[in-house]
Amino acid sequence: MLKNDQLAEWDRENFFHPSTHLAQFARGDLGNRIISGGDGLYIEDRDGTRLMDAFAGLYCVNIGYGRQEVAEAIAKQAKELAYYHSYVGHGTEASITLAKMIIDRAPANMSKVYFGLSGSDANETNIKLVWYYNNVLDRPKKKKIISRWRGYHGSGLMTGSLTGLELFHNKFDLPLSQVVHTDAPYYFRRADTGQSEADFVKQCADSLEALIAREGADSIAAFIGEPVLGTGGIVPPPAGYWKAIQAVLKKHDILLIADEVVTGFGRLGSMFGSDHYDIEPDIITIAKGLTSAYAPLSGSIVSNKVWKVLEEGTDKLGPIGHGWTYSAHPIGAAAGVANLKLIDDLKLVDNARDTGTYFNQGLKAALDDISIVGDVRGEGILAAIEFVKDRDTREFFDPALKVGPQVAAALLERSKVIGRAMPQGDILGFAPPLCMTRAEADMIIEAARDAIQSVASKLG
Amino acid sequence: MLKNDQLAEWDRENFFHPSTHLAQFARGDLGNRIISGGDGLYIEDRDGTRLMDAFAGLYCVNIGYGRQEVAEAIAKQAKELAYYHSYVGHGTEASITLAKMIIDRAPANMSKVYFGLSGSDANETNIKLVWYYNNVLDRPKKKKIISRWRGYHGSGLMTGSLTGLELFHNKFDLPLSQVVHTDAPYYFRRADTGQSEADFVKQCADSLEALIAREGADSIAAFIGEPVLGTGGIVPPPAGYWKAIQAVLKKHDILLIADEVVTGFGRLGSMFGSDHYDIEPDIITIAKGLTSAYAPLSGSIVSNKVWKVLEEGTDKLGPIGHGWTYSAHPIGAAAGVANLKLIDDLKLVDNARDTGTYFNQGLKAALDDISIVGDVRGEGILAAIEFVKDRDTREFFDPALKVGPQVAAALLERSKVIGRAMPQGDILGFAPPLCMTRAEADMIIEAARDAIQSVASKLG
Ligand SMILES: Cc1ncc(COP(=O)(O)O)c(C=O)c1O
Ligand SMILES: Cc1ncc(COP(=O)(O)O)c(C=O)c1O
Repeated sequence: MLKNDQLAEWDRENFFHPSTHLAQFARGDLGNRIISGGDGLYIEDRDGTRLMDAFAGLYCVNIGYGRQEVAEAIAKQAKELAYYHSYVGHGTEASITLAKMIIDRAPANMSKVYFGLSGSDANETNIKLVWYYNNVLDRPKKKKIISRWRGYHGSGLMTGSLTGLELFHNKFDLPLSQVVHTDAPYYFRRADTGQSEADFVKQCADSLEALIAREGADSIAAFIGEPVLGTGGIVPPPAGYWKAIQAVLKKHDILLIADEVVTGFGRLGSMFGSDHYDIEPDIITIAKGLTSAYAPLSGSIVSNKVWKVLEEGTDKLGPIGHGWTYSAHPIGAAAGVANLKLIDDLKLVDNARDTGTYFNQGLKAALDDISIVGDVRGEGILAAIEFVKDRDTREFFDPALKVGPQVAAALLERSKVIGRAMPQGDILGFAPPLCMTRAEADMIIEAARDAIQSVASKLG
Repeated sequence: MLKNDQLAEWDRENFFHPSTHLAQFARGDLGNRIISGGDGLYIEDRDGTRLMDAFAGLYCVNIGYGRQEVAEAIAKQAKELAYYHSYVGHGTEASITLAKMIIDRAPANMSKVYFGLSGSDANETNIKLVWYYNNVLDRPKKKKIISRWRGYHGSGLMTGSLTGLELFHNKFDLPLSQVVHTDAPYYFRRADTGQSEADFVKQCADSLEALIAREGADSIAAFIGEPVLGTGGIVPPPAGYWKAIQAVLKKHDILLIADEVVTGFGRLGSMFGSDHYDIEPDIITIAKGLTSAYAPLSGSIVSNKVWKVLEEGTDKLGPIGHGWTYSAHPIGAAAGVANLKLIDDLKLVDNARDTGTYFNQGLKAALDDISIVGDVRGEGILAAIEFVKDRDTREFFDPALKVGPQVAAALLERSKVIGRAMPQGDILGFAPPLCMTRAEADMIIEAARDAIQSVASKLG
């Protein structure tokens, strides 16, 4: 067996890690961690350390680690047929079955699934489809995409432009010009702390309306949004938000893309976030929960309305010029089928609702008396705690203090629990696997309280 | 077991296939094919039809179908740990080992591997890195990418812009403005049929020089090219082409991205196309052959020169804001390690050279006397036959006749052999698995001769 220090050396010398301080890692100032196994909420590294992963990887291992049903499905597919392409009407039993299972579970009026690999490439596909759609409809100017500040939609050039977070734009010359941003539905961070939730929602809709007027409705193709803001801070929408936004979009014939990469397949306690909030999207982005990350797979679910126009397009223009070599990869498809079955069999959507409610209520109750806790919020098995210097004035900490990362580090060190310091603001995020039990929820709550208190006391 | 007609129905109702005529497929005018297994060069569908795949999927199943060594590696990884992320210095034994194996095999001066899922997303990463690189070096204007007409670099918005093929631009509003195209190194299609190869190469270099002068060298970041043009027609470069092009790029401090998605890991009879043609790239794109498609995985190999600047960047700016959830996915990494081992053990690079030479010589000898065969060309286990109406004047067929697709259809129907009608021009492409034997090469040659003759006689 390879020695850990041998691997550590290879790691520093050869491996370009994503979202990493490259110089610190290459110099050895930043440690590496080699993960070797996992079960349920737990992962284990090669040094024998066992950690409770209360963020499910990158909120994607929804069924939990070590599920042999899915591993078996992957193994079987790999032995029978690891790969064939899906161009020009080719498929496998797994990919066809999965397409059917997805449409069966999707909100009403959904027609077909295009398969990709990542959430980013699915959103890339979505933009291509939306542009093609408006070309077929002979509206060649209708092309801009509205996204929201603090949205996260990927890390590519165009999808990173949709993403409304500085870290992903900085020094990459993003956003590109076809993307415009509107307000984040982030009530806790409203400018006027005296504003009511209803007034804030009205302001979001008015601001969108004004943006559309400024740009011209005939230049705008689509609006993209996560049902619950994810990487931008884990922020459920204020009451009435989606209703108000959809009214504006309908009025201007702007398509709605619901990015359900995080919320799809149960995270909020509903199969889809669109059902949860009465959203009627034209396209839905899926990834993460589709396979619980056991194999790379993403998808674009296209509504009947959009599909009809795509059909019309190929009748006019011939085969659609879009495809990834690994679209509908058999290994991903097999993992998806087994994963969706397991979500049903284990009733994980129900558990996300029940244990999620328990978890969110527990967090609120346990943390509300800590002075640096400004907000505790969440939905289903998704939660965030936002830290403030002063609760009464809602004054935030100096970002240089890195209070969010400090809390995440304390959580890991003191309790061996993984939470995620969200990239913009001092926010600790939780998104454990959907199989979390109440006992495990209690452990996370307890660990969070301990970590926050320890940082609070250091901050004085 | 599911019935085939049940699956066919689900397929039409739920599955959005890439590169497909969507309306014909939904109406049932275009057949579906459900692939269920494979071994070596052969695949099998659920109707029991056995086909010889002389295009290795989409030139990606380099080790051939049904390799249990790779299936076992995938199965083992799925059982132990299907997923953990690779952000902030995390990894697995497989991903670290694979990074090391890639750098060991890569051309000189390569430093690190960033892992993605598809060839497209790897090229997306490359553009992001090149832009970041020039921002760190304080050359904020140096951002345009030069690609070549007939190049293929992906199907995304920016990568589809790099791609220089009409089918992938049409009605998608591509190419985007940051991409400019230069001449395809396609000697057979030179404007003046009397021109020598050396003069044609000089013309390509001059034309690139003129483009750079027009755009301004200080506005151009990088040049991207496949060592051998692939989807654009399978065209090996004319002698001296890469030397001439690199001289121009060096002069203007323009980075060179070698897109080795097809040529990497043995296809040309060398481990990399860059070694094969004495190319010294700054970044290399890899995918397909990296895992032989057994699981989705791609990579960007970054040279020492680029890496140093990226390190400098993170020292100035903090962690790099780029990552895919499934970067360095353990299943892909495990498949990659097993695949590269197998390529060594079976000496597939040597076989690509030896059997590839035999194959290409055989094709030439067998087809040269057929009147519609204008060109037979190739390198390693990669070959193309281009059809013409008149050999002497090199007059091409009316594209509406679809001579290329007709030949591919005849090949499939008459001999159950899969070749690929390349998308632009009447070109039949072959790229069988690298394990092809001489006997199998003979069968493909024989089948090609038969199919071409049958179409030629129909054309009169
Ligand atoms: C809402 C949302 N969309 C898209 C993505 C991009 O997915 P991927 O990292 O697989 O490209 C993410 C990833 O976190 C996401 O949260
Ligand atoms: C040279 C080259 N680059 C990039 C790609 C894109 O790869 P993918 O289809 O995996 O996105 C391809 C695919 O055929 C290719 O041939």
